[in-house]
Amino acid sequence: MRVLITGAAGFIGSNLADRYLKDGHTVIGIDNFSTGQREFLAPSVDLHEVDLLNLQAIVPLFEGVDQVIHLAANADVRFGPDHPDRDLQQNVIATWNVLEAMRRTNVKRIAFSSTGSVYGEAPVIPTPEDAGFPVQTSLYGASKVSAEAMISAYAESFAFEAHIFRFVSILGERYTHGHVLDFYKSLRADPSQLRVLGNGKQRKSYLYVRDCVEAILIALDKAKDKVNIFNLGTDEYCQVTDSIGWITGYMNVAPKLNFTGGDRGWIGDNPFIFLDTKRIRSLGWQPSLTIQQAVIKTVQYLEQNAWVLERR
Amino acid sequence: MRVLITGAAGFIGSNLADRYLKDGHTVIGIDNFSTGQREFLAPSVDLHEVDLLNLQAIVPLFEGVDQVIHLAANADVRFGPDHPDRDLQQNVIATWNVLEAMRRTNVKRIAFSSTGSVYGEAPVIPTPEDAGFPVQTSLYGASKVSAEAMISAYAESFAFEAHIFRFVSILGERYTHGHVLDFYKSLRADPSQLRVLGNGKQRKSYLYVRDCVEAILIALDKAKDKVNIFNLGTDEYCQVTDSIGWITGYMNVAPKLNFTGGDRGWIGDNPFIFLDTKRIRSLGWQPSLTIQQAVIKTVQYLEQNAWVLERR
Repeated sequence: MRVLITGAAGFIGSNLADRYLKDGHTVIGIDNFSTGQREFLAPSVDLHEVDLLNLQAIVPLFEGVDQVIHLAANADVRFGPDHPDRDLQQNVIATWNVLEAMRRTNVKRIAFSSTGSVYGEAPVIPTPEDAGFPVQTSLYGASKVSAEAMISAYAESFAFEAHIFRFVSILGERYTHGHVLDFYKSLRADPSQLRVLGNGKQRKSYLYVRDCVEAILIALDKAKDKVNIFNLGTDEYCQVTDSIGWITGYMNVAPKLNFTGGDRGWIGDNPFIFLDTKRIRSLGWQPSLTIQQAVIKTVQYLEQNAWVLERR
Repeated sequence: MRVLITGAAGFIGSNLADRYLKDGHTVIGIDNFSTGQREFLAPSVDLHEVDLLNLQAIVPLFEGVDQVIHLAANADVRFGPDHPDRDLQQNVIATWNVLEAMRRTNVKRIAFSSTGSVYGEAPVIPTPEDAGFPVQTSLYGASKVSAEAMISAYAESFAFEAHIFRFVSILGERYTHGHVLDFYKSLRADPSQLRVLGNGKQRKSYLYVRDCVEAILIALDKAKDKVNIFNLGTDEYCQVTDSIGWITGYMNVAPKLNFTGGDRGWIGDNPFIFLDTKRIRSLGWQPSLTIQQAVIKTVQYLEQNAWVLERR
């Protein structure tokens, strides 16, 4: 099978590429290296350094492809208000270009990395896939809802099969941004104190990257509706302070915690994300690591790959 | 008050402009005349012929504006698959440009014309504003969901007050496209037969344009949340064949009906649209015309303004 992965040099993309290569498939990778890392990519990936905003350039790469895994995105949830066009360009228009490239080359199958942020401040927790019509609170969530909507409409209009995955935050090998990196980097530089956005009581969910990859493969294999939507996460959540406890415990440091205060870390921050994952579990998938194990695995990865701390 | 209306020369825009002018307000109109009609616009509207895709050109027009009514859109639901970039450009990117123009000029209040199509094939009918997370079936619906999401995220990020109106189809004076015009025009040319898309049993809802305008004014006056979402429609629906009966009865013609067949008029057509309008009614609004009265009013308008039939 020929699998095209956008964002192939990224955290999740490179893990997926490794998994497909291991199974003997051909992987075509697209990455603009805005956040991707060449070190992550196996040499056997057929890599194309190109921006998805360049529709003419990407169309030929889709010829003969059996399925597209569209992961390339601006994943900075926090800084949306600082550059409001980034989510529009990199998440909305780039996704539309992927869909157009598929339509023009008759590729019919797409998997897409959406986010639990699309639920906004969810009225039901744990939140199922068919929760109430959400009101968006972040530009990032808005851009992902937009991309989901376009993918669904293309599936209906042009007989695609679409798989939409609403991720919690992902942890593990090749993790390059997020709170574990921020905390670890800060504590390496100064183990005596740690600045924490908000009051530390925000409740968040996480998933180990290899569990995420397996869930995507199982859903692509077993779900055959026109539009298949799956929450991906573990059956638990933690507070920011829990995560700090695991990290500092593993590092054997005891910093003074300086909370910036308030129940949100930033404008549009969602103080409680916890997804109902019955649907993906019903296909036989289950995570192999708990959140605590995934946090520790991530710290170990950063210890062994300190170069990651200096990138971006 | 200074009110900026995008799509000011359109069907709903020009009716809103008249209403604001009558109340003594200043109306700044933006229209690219892709579907707008100069004949609809009162001379006292401060009109700017410019495309919303030209962000640099529109920003200065927002200076000193008190509220924005963003109506400009591609409203062709049926032909999305024929030109898939039109909804992206005219509905998604144009809306983002309006939001950016507001942010840059510190305008904080926006009303937006969304659509009942955002509910896709709604699981609950009549459909309330907080119905289950919808899966989009048309590029048009997808583009409107995207615009809603961006507006909500801007409201959260930049302290806007947003009013989002999910319209059923609108009828009445200055109606320029839709099934009443198609049927009326066809029957004028040949009263002996009428081609009907689908099986004629599709159930749809309609609202008279002046009732729509009053609903917008009442909601802007009374609803003060950060994001205010209202369905707009009557408390009834009709079948396509009901509408044909009213039109042919009024015209005193008895055509043979040629149904193209199937329960949908086109790809992505929604066979049953009926919105729950309790929320807007709770503010004291109610429609003045039934669907039948609005259909007849529309036919009368077309009779008296036959030039409209030849436009576009």
